[in-house]
Amino acid sequence: MAGPVQSIERAAAILRLLAAGPRRLGLGEVASALGLAKGTAHGILRTLQHVDFVEQDAATGKYQLGAALLHLGTSYLDVNELRSRAINWADALAARSGEAVRLGTPLEGKVLVVHHVFRPDDTLQTLDVGALLPLHASSLGKVLLAFGAAPVEPLLETELEAYTRHTLVLPEDLTRVLGEIRELGWGAEVQEMSVGEGGIAAPIRGHGGLVVGAIGLSGPVERICDTRGRPLPALITLLREAARAISRDLGAARW
Amino acid sequence: MAGPVQSIERAAAILRLLAAGPRRLGLGEVASALGLAKGTAHGILRTLQHVDFVEQDAATGKYQLGAALLHLGTSYLDVNELRSRAINWADALAARSGEAVRLGTPLEGKVLVVHHVFRPDDTLQTLDVGALLPLHASSLGKVLLAFGAAPVEPLLETELEAYTRHTLVLPEDLTRVLGEIRELGWGAEVQEMSVGEGGIAAPIRGHGGLVVGAIGLSGPVERICDTRGRPLPALITLLREAARAISRDLGAARW
Repeated sequence: MAGPVQSIERAAAILRLLAAGPRRLGLGEVASALGLAKGTAHGILRTLQHVDFVEQDAATGKYQLGAALLHLGTSYLDVNELRSRAINWADALAARSGEAVRLGTPLEGKVLVVHHVFRPDDTLQTLDVGALLPLHASSLGKVLLAFGAAPVEPLLETELEAYTRHTLVLPEDLTRVLGEIRELGWGAEVQEMSVGEGGIAAPIRGHGGLVVGAIGLSGPVERICDTRGRPLPALITLLREAARAISRDLGAARW
Repeated sequence: MAGPVQSIERAAAILRLLAAGPRRLGLGEVASALGLAKGTAHGILRTLQHVDFVEQDAATGKYQLGAALLHLGTSYLDVNELRSRAINWADALAARSGEAVRLGTPLEGKVLVVHHVFRPDDTLQTLDVGALLPLHASSLGKVLLAFGAAPVEPLLETELEAYTRHTLVLPEDLTRVLGEIRELGWGAEVQEMSVGEGGIAAPIRGHGGLVVGAIGLSGPVERICDTRGRPLPALITLLREAARAISRDLGAARW
C-alpha cells in the first residue's frame, strides 16, 4: 500500500496556514513556516493558484485563499448528513426555545460549526457556520469530548488556553466535568469562552450509536441560566428532545 | 520554471468531481471519471482523507467532501476584499430597496455568490453564498461578461443551456445584450433562469478600474419590473449608487 502523496499533504498544509493567522502571506513566509525550499513552495502555490484554491494579490504578490474553496465548502454542507437530517429540528428548537442553535462536529482538535440558526429576534447576529470553536471551552466541544467523538488525551497534557476566568484550564477539572456530562447526558458552558455568554449542548448519535456531533443552544447567560448560573431545565428538556429526534433520524437504535 | 504539480492538479480535480453531480462516489467511479488508474486515484483519495478534505462513508466505502473544506471556504470569505468592502453597502441596499442583494465574482466559467443579504421580510429564503450561477442566465453573470471580468468567448461557440424559454441561448443574442449592458452600465435578467424571478446587476470596479465583481438585486419579477417587464428605475438608481460606493472603497479612480 502506497504512502500518502507528499505534495498533496504539503498543499493542504499551505491552505491551512493561509486560513490561520494573517491570511495573506508572501512566498518566503509560506516556505519558512512549513520548512520548505522556496522553489518547492512556489511550485505548489502556482499549482494551487492554477486550480483557484489560492489567489495572488497583484499589488503585493502575497498569497491568500481562493474562490474555489468557497464552492467546495458549501458543497460539503450539502452532502453533510448530520446537517441535512438536523436542519428542521434545529429550526424548531430555535423557535421553541427562543435561542440560537448550533450544530458541531469534530475537526482537527476543534469543533466545526456546520449549522447555525439565529436567535429568533431582530438582534444583529453573525453566522458561525465554518467557524472552529475550542473543545474545552464550548458546550458543543465538551459534549464531543465526553462522548468520545473527539480525543481528550491531547488536552490532558498541559494547561489549557484561558478565554475567561471561568474557562476550564486544568486537565483534572476538565476530566471531572466530562465525567459529569457523561452522567447527565448533556453539558453546559457558562461564561467559559466569552464573558456574559453561555450555552448547553447534547450529543447526537448516528448509526450504531456512536456520537457523530452535538447540538447546542447558546446566548446571553441570563437567558440560558437562572440567577445561580444553572442552565434552565426547560431549555435542557427542549435541547435533549431535539438531540434524540435527530439521532433517531440518523439511525441510532438507542439514544 | 517548474510546471504545475500533477498530483495536486489531480487532487483538485477529484474534489471538483465530488462537488458536482451525485457527491458520493466509489473509488472506481472517481478513477474512471478522471481517467486515472485505480491505484493512483486511491493514493490521492487516501491522502485527501488524511487531511480531512475527503470523508469515506463507513457503510458504503464511498467518498464525499470533508469538513476541512468548510473552514477553508469560510476563511476565504473572511479574506475576500470585495466582500468585506461591500458588506455594509449591501445591507443598506437591501434595506433601501426592500429586495435581496447578492455579490458575485467569476469562477471557472460561472458566477460565485460571495455574499447574500436576504430580502428584508419574513419570507423563507435560502442562503446562496457559495452557489455557482450561470454567466449567461444571471444578471450578475451578464454584467461580469459585459465588462470583461469573465471571458465571453467560450460561450459563443455553441448554443447555450436554456433554463426557461426566456434564457438567451443564441450567441448572437448574448453578444447584442452584452453590448447594451456596456452602454447602459447595468444589466437585467427577466425570467431567464427561473420563471417568475428577475434581477438587475451593476459592475464593481477595483483598483485600476478593472471590474472585479458585480452586485445585484433579485426577487419576484413583479417586484423588480414594471408591468411591461422593464426593471424599475428607482431600483436601478439605488443599485448603481451602491456599486459606485463599493468601487470607490475598493480604490477605483473612475466608475
